[in-house]
Amino acid sequence: MHSHNIQLDKQGRLRHFLTIEDLSREILTEILDTAESFSGVSERSVKKVPICRGKVIANLFFETSTRTRTTFELAAKRLSADVLSLNISASSASKGETLLDTLRNLEAMHCDMFVVRHNESGAAHFIANNAAPGVAVINAGDGRHAHPTQAMLDMFTIRRHKKEFVGLRVAIVGDILHSRVARSQIIALNTLGTSEVRVIAPRTLLPAEIRMMGVHVYHDLDEGIKDVDVVIMLRLQKERMQGALLPSEHEYFRLYGLTEARLRVAKPDAIVMHPGPINRGVEMDTEVADGPRSVILEQVSNGIAVRMAVMSITMSNAGGQAA
Amino acid sequence: MHSHNIQLDKQGRLRHFLTIEDLSREILTEILDTAESFSGVSERSVKKVPICRGKVIANLFFETSTRTRTTFELAAKRLSADVLSLNISASSASKGETLLDTLRNLEAMHCDMFVVRHNESGAAHFIANNAAPGVAVINAGDGRHAHPTQAMLDMFTIRRHKKEFVGLRVAIVGDILHSRVARSQIIALNTLGTSEVRVIAPRTLLPAEIRMMGVHVYHDLDEGIKDVDVVIMLRLQKERMQGALLPSEHEYFRLYGLTEARLRVAKPDAIVMHPGPINRGVEMDTEVADGPRSVILEQVSNGIAVRMAVMSITMSNAGGQAA
Amino acid sequence: MHSHNIQLDKQGRLRHFLTIEDLSREILTEILDTAESFSGVSERSVKKVPICRGKVIANLFFETSTRTRTTFELAAKRLSADVLSLNISASSASKGETLLDTLRNLEAMHCDMFVVRHNESGAAHFIANNAAPGVAVINAGDGRHAHPTQAMLDMFTIRRHKKEFVGLRVAIVGDILHSRVARSQIIALNTLGTSEVRVIAPRTLLPAEIRMMGVHVYHDLDEGIKDVDVVIMLRLQKERMQGALLPSEHEYFRLYGLTEARLRVAKPDAIVMHPGPINRGVEMDTEVADGPRSVILEQVSNGIAVRMAVMSITMSNAGGQAA
Repeated sequence: MHSHNIQLDKQGRLRHFLTIEDLSREILTEILDTAESFSGVSERSVKKVPICRGKVIANLFFETSTRTRTTFELAAKRLSADVLSLNISASSASKGETLLDTLRNLEAMHCDMFVVRHNESGAAHFIANNAAPGVAVINAGDGRHAHPTQAMLDMFTIRRHKKEFVGLRVAIVGDILHSRVARSQIIALNTLGTSEVRVIAPRTLLPAEIRMMGVHVYHDLDEGIKDVDVVIMLRLQKERMQGALLPSEHEYFRLYGLTEARLRVAKPDAIVMHPGPINRGVEMDTEVADGPRSVILEQVSNGIAVRMAVMSITMSNAGGQAA
Repeated sequence: MHSHNIQLDKQGRLRHFLTIEDLSREILTEILDTAESFSGVSERSVKKVPICRGKVIANLFFETSTRTRTTFELAAKRLSADVLSLNISASSASKGETLLDTLRNLEAMHCDMFVVRHNESGAAHFIANNAAPGVAVINAGDGRHAHPTQAMLDMFTIRRHKKEFVGLRVAIVGDILHSRVARSQIIALNTLGTSEVRVIAPRTLLPAEIRMMGVHVYHDLDEGIKDVDVVIMLRLQKERMQGALLPSEHEYFRLYGLTEARLRVAKPDAIVMHPGPINRGVEMDTEVADGPRSVILEQVSNGIAVRMAVMSITMSNAGGQAA
Repeated sequence: MHSHNIQLDKQGRLRHFLTIEDLSREILTEILDTAESFSGVSERSVKKVPICRGKVIANLFFETSTRTRTTFELAAKRLSADVLSLNISASSASKGETLLDTLRNLEAMHCDMFVVRHNESGAAHFIANNAAPGVAVINAGDGRHAHPTQAMLDMFTIRRHKKEFVGLRVAIVGDILHSRVARSQIIALNTLGTSEVRVIAPRTLLPAEIRMMGVHVYHDLDEGIKDVDVVIMLRLQKERMQGALLPSEHEYFRLYGLTEARLRVAKPDAIVMHPGPINRGVEMDTEVADGPRSVILEQVSNGIAVRMAVMSITMSNAGGQAA
């Protein structure tokens, strides 16, 4: 049954965490439930559980992302694991070592997990396909394709506030085309049974095949956020401004920037999310970012719990496979 | 009473450690006494106490200082804390994230302490003013203003050798104008009741308002160190040579460089201090640096104990406030 | 007796680990036996022993080597030590601090061990000569001279497969002249009683004095590997290609590249070793690198155990001396 899904073992348990695609509602719910059990750890006086003591987690960052690396490092330390941070491009690559040889070497040093950040789609899949039986692989963002832990922390944040996905109306606003995370969010929302997923963006920032993903498309912000329970704002990569995709930051804000006034058409208890870092005055007003509906900082806290969950689940299942 | 002193909580206890100014003799003495209790830890076989186990200390270094970062990192590890080292300029700043958003994010990840190094005066104050209730902030050096843990390790070193500050004559020699640490030292010495604090420097390396700080000013080294108990040499920033402030290194040494011969006018049991790294042959002779009166390496050891003290005191008081 | 051997204490025990030279068969065997006892640790679920808990190991890397630094860091963490990684060139050197002052400072911070990587021969010796009594020094590679932990992990790998050195025929193939490790390997093999050590290289890549080291010299690969038990391939530094030392990679492979076909003249149970990273198609075929005789990845695993052994032995002996 699961023979073609590299993310699952023969018993259908999560073995690598690479993409939201092909994961069942049961698996996503297991991640959310496990994260729930970890969410208290970060608030304790001693913020550690001994679950991964003596395990080695190698951060393989082929592109720099202090923010993402930091959250994985903190999550690993809260599981009591040892963390090895490797800037791959700067080291073995310059000695002409192939990626596979690098992996084999790290496995020979008995690393238990690879957290992979790469600017090419499929890099984490390639690594998972070639990893030793006992080693788990987590995708920390690859190209435009997927950033699944970000999507899961968003799901966790929504569930904490709204309890159920059934009955929810969720809008994703902004640069869907270039977003690592929008695609993952859409799939996760649909898998978890969200009643209506909307995307709101200018035509130039929407992928051609977007309607096939089970979403309602809006080009007008006011129409799109009407009666929604959740507004997910995407980060605008300023470099996309070039090439005439977008006229200007000012114009973007006028058309797609969130303000308290515009939010009035959403449900009264709607929450506002953003993956950070925010471009204040571009994607949203400061008033919204720091306002009562914003759950943006909760997302950051939840990110630690979700990453602890994904790490502990896959490491436990990978370890079983090795033994 | 303490409402305007951001460093203290409502009970007058140390909550952040930003500057020696406005701190009472009692608070400074509490730091020295706590450091005394930690000074044995570094000499034990297992150099750790479990006081801060599970706490996360974020090193926010906006300017590079391997030396200072290393001492804070070692102090944190000896308290069993986890350390997160962030080069802020290289990461979030380049993504356009504001400093406040960076802080909010780190707080959302449940960091317990920020150790801040910044080249602008007041950066640590700004961060402390904006930190969440449970988070303590330590100033690891800001602009020309303050480097208070360095000043406290100097006080600790003096007290270990001289027992009391009352009755002491202490001379600070060198570039007072550009020194992060001289100002902190002067205030600490006066607060702790030192009988006489002297500064010895060429006119071009003295701030205009120096006499208002309660010091005796000398321009001649031989006069200035006569009968002193302690000589604190400042590091000469070689880049200050430019712009005609100083004629040459050679000339500086001739006028203000410490030699064994010159030291003869100090008290027979005088000690010689320097924050390191020493420019041998500029601020002092190698004979003095490595001689029997030099306590320069003791300062380094004491720096770990003092930083452990400041970290554990503020974290304990900040934690109380959060609860 | 041992007065001139800086590596040994007065009782003849290993105090620093700088070079294979001057070490007795007993000392080398102690390292191999201790590594044997540690080799299981990396395969355990909790990959840690508390032997060095609370100890601080400073990695002093004067030249970058992510690979070597990683193995020492992992070995240190498996011994439960704290690791401080210092890129010396980038920090104190730029502030004009002398190497000796840097050492004195790290000792004052109560570091227990220096792991030194430097591009000049003798750097680790210099540091050991100047280290405080309680501090152990490990050479992690210096210039062309020595890379003794690499040599010892090779010996460990050979012993695991061949049990005894007596009766063995071992060939070292490649750029002997520029290899940090070949010299260490030759001495270790001879000290451990290997019956026959051969070197196989073009004349341009052999040092003049090679025959004085107790080896048989071959310029032809097929002749040289005839009936050997072990083939150690050296890494070809591609930058050596320049200056007419070598005609081309292609030509090198034709003359000295290992293939399954050529390996037929070696003993049927011969093993193939390489320090990594491999230049596939230059030093050897992919078929050989990943083939049944290759023990290249075992070498990587064994490297952790051997480094744990060297660290724990020297730290224990240095600690005794300090007390």
